[in-house]
Amino acid sequence: MSHRILLLPGDGIGPEIVAQGRRVLEALRDNHGLDCELDTAPIGGAGYDAAGQPLPEETLAKAQAADAVLLGAVGGPRYDELPREVRPERGLLAIRAELGLFGNLRPAMLYPQLADASALRPEVVAGLDLLIVRELTGGIYFGEPRGVRELPSGERQGYDTEVYSESEIERIARLAFAAAERRQGRLCSVDKANVLESSGLWREVVERVAADYPQIELSHMYVDNAAMQLVRAPKQFDVIVTGNMFGDILSDCAAQLTGSIGMLPSASLDERGKGLYEPVHGSAPDIAGQDKANPLATILSVAMLLRYSLGKSEHAERVERAVGQVLEEGLRTADLQGGSRVVGTVEMGEAVVGRL
Amino acid sequence: MSHRILLLPGDGIGPEIVAQGRRVLEALRDNHGLDCELDTAPIGGAGYDAAGQPLPEETLAKAQAADAVLLGAVGGPRYDELPREVRPERGLLAIRAELGLFGNLRPAMLYPQLADASALRPEVVAGLDLLIVRELTGGIYFGEPRGVRELPSGERQGYDTEVYSESEIERIARLAFAAAERRQGRLCSVDKANVLESSGLWREVVERVAADYPQIELSHMYVDNAAMQLVRAPKQFDVIVTGNMFGDILSDCAAQLTGSIGMLPSASLDERGKGLYEPVHGSAPDIAGQDKANPLATILSVAMLLRYSLGKSEHAERVERAVGQVLEEGLRTADLQGGSRVVGTVEMGEAVVGRL
Ligand SMILES: CC(C)[C@H](C(=O)O)[C@@H](O)C(=O)O
Ligand SMILES: CC(C)[C@H](C(=O)O)[C@@H](O)C(=O)O
Repeated sequence: MSHRILLLPGDGIGPEIVAQGRRVLEALRDNHGLDCELDTAPIGGAGYDAAGQPLPEETLAKAQAADAVLLGAVGGPRYDELPREVRPERGLLAIRAELGLFGNLRPAMLYPQLADASALRPEVVAGLDLLIVRELTGGIYFGEPRGVRELPSGERQGYDTEVYSESEIERIARLAFAAAERRQGRLCSVDKANVLESSGLWREVVERVAADYPQIELSHMYVDNAAMQLVRAPKQFDVIVTGNMFGDILSDCAAQLTGSIGMLPSASLDERGKGLYEPVHGSAPDIAGQDKANPLATILSVAMLLRYSLGKSEHAERVERAVGQVLEEGLRTADLQGGSRVVGTVEMGEAVVGRL
Repeated sequence: MSHRILLLPGDGIGPEIVAQGRRVLEALRDNHGLDCELDTAPIGGAGYDAAGQPLPEETLAKAQAADAVLLGAVGGPRYDELPREVRPERGLLAIRAELGLFGNLRPAMLYPQLADASALRPEVVAGLDLLIVRELTGGIYFGEPRGVRELPSGERQGYDTEVYSESEIERIARLAFAAAERRQGRLCSVDKANVLESSGLWREVVERVAADYPQIELSHMYVDNAAMQLVRAPKQFDVIVTGNMFGDILSDCAAQLTGSIGMLPSASLDERGKGLYEPVHGSAPDIAGQDKANPLATILSVAMLLRYSLGKSEHAERVERAVGQVLEEGLRTADLQGGSRVVGTVEMGEAVVGRL
């Protein structure tokens, strides 16, 4: 059966990096027996330009029909003055919600070849390999009611609702426990149960789910302490599970610990393993169109796509090994330190394809 | 006029470190013309033990009558099984709310003598001196409605409300602009305006207030990016202003950048400059009663108290200079690196008093 993969280049450097992701998929198809069909659609600012919406209907229909989606990045100064409802990031939030992509996996790992790039001391981050599991379709991102209202006094008040139901907490907890089983067996659940009611329920449900995973070592941490511990001693963590808002903050903090966010992929999964894959870095409009962007996070997102949505771990490992090899050979895009030769986006993509 | 200062030792190491703060105040009173009266009351677990409540009525009455409050820390394993409403941290949240302490100032600065303690590379943090201004009596910490309800499906749902009114945003913004005026003149407002309605209003009001401070350079940053930038290049910041929840996370992250949270004071101010002062570290029950705790964050909180609530900047500087001097002489409590001699809580307090 042929796997349908939808490419969503998006804005800024998105088209350039997704082009290299496409190349890797095509090489696996042509030379390594990967049975796949590729299609492309606009999202974000490109969606707005094409169809007046950051998530055009046709793009959503194609994404619904696909087995997996590879996204570049959305957003850019050209779209900053648009009304909030049609801004590029609305396209991202909408596709997450429409596809039910509740489980966001954000690995933060430090490639030994790039250890010097971290702002942290080498001994604090050497060998770092942690996974943040972020709930992605609930919490304050989507909770109702939300809005701006006028108070009797005449002044305005802005409000949002943080909300989690037992079933939402349970399914993200199960995803995180399962991930911990495949790793070092340690899960840290992050909340603010000393202040928030929703966190109280979160903690209770995570505890309940833990009964089904007796071999996993579960701990709980308040979000403020988690932010501290990530900076103090990040290697204490194996898997972290948390809600949408805390996950947004902590995963970016964790990504930055590596010093090379140009290297970090992510996966957003639905209940059946279908997923959207994207680099954690943004659309970098300042370097768009200059063949400077690092395509490796996108290529590593392809590896996650192969592993999680297509069940092709061997192809995934082939991609990851090829990336390791080009680093080992000293190739670097401009954002990366060390190495012996700075190459552009296209050359880096070609190099990876050459090592597959 | 005599200044009334209320001491709230609290739990864990609280009593030991506040005892050293008291000593500094007494020395200033006895030898340096500071006109003050000191009183003490229980809060947190100690409040629960004494009066069945983490903020006993008598403690609140004394705090209301005082010109400034010095707090140690609250919480400990003895109180972990109590119902949420009487847990130690409820005492802290209650006193903030009751006294209207909306403006939380959390400086994160790296003492040159302690630069080695940071998990970050020396060049990234050397000379770090940033101030986080956190809104402390609003947002999701206190927003209504909040609770756990049963859905028609029978499952439970936990919910909290993030809420900010124009006047709440305006007063914290003014406090932050004023702080930036006394510092390097740069203010970064942190929100999540691409997702939250309350953040949209936050950004709008901060922009409006900015018109009154034309000499301040204002920027805006999303909270996820702020967490990244704190790790990547913390020295880019002068003053950060943000809401209660984001401030909780970012201020702990910023504190940890220094590697010496045993050195960091904080101030929580009301509309007229009355304040509660406390170290940012916690109650450290594991070392309580062993004369191991670092009293310097508490002593530096005394300095903030003198400056902000009593208008005694000369006394404040005297205290800060004395702290710098004991570090310079090589004295260290066990949590601090470098130095030539490890001393206990009492000896460290005595040393500071000796250098006043
Ligand atoms: C662009 C923004 C809406 C998005 C988020 O907050 O989820 C981004 O920061 C991310 O983490 O993917
Ligand atoms: C103890 C807790 C309720 C408190 C908070 O979240 O405000 C603490 O983390 C702080 O930052 O002072």
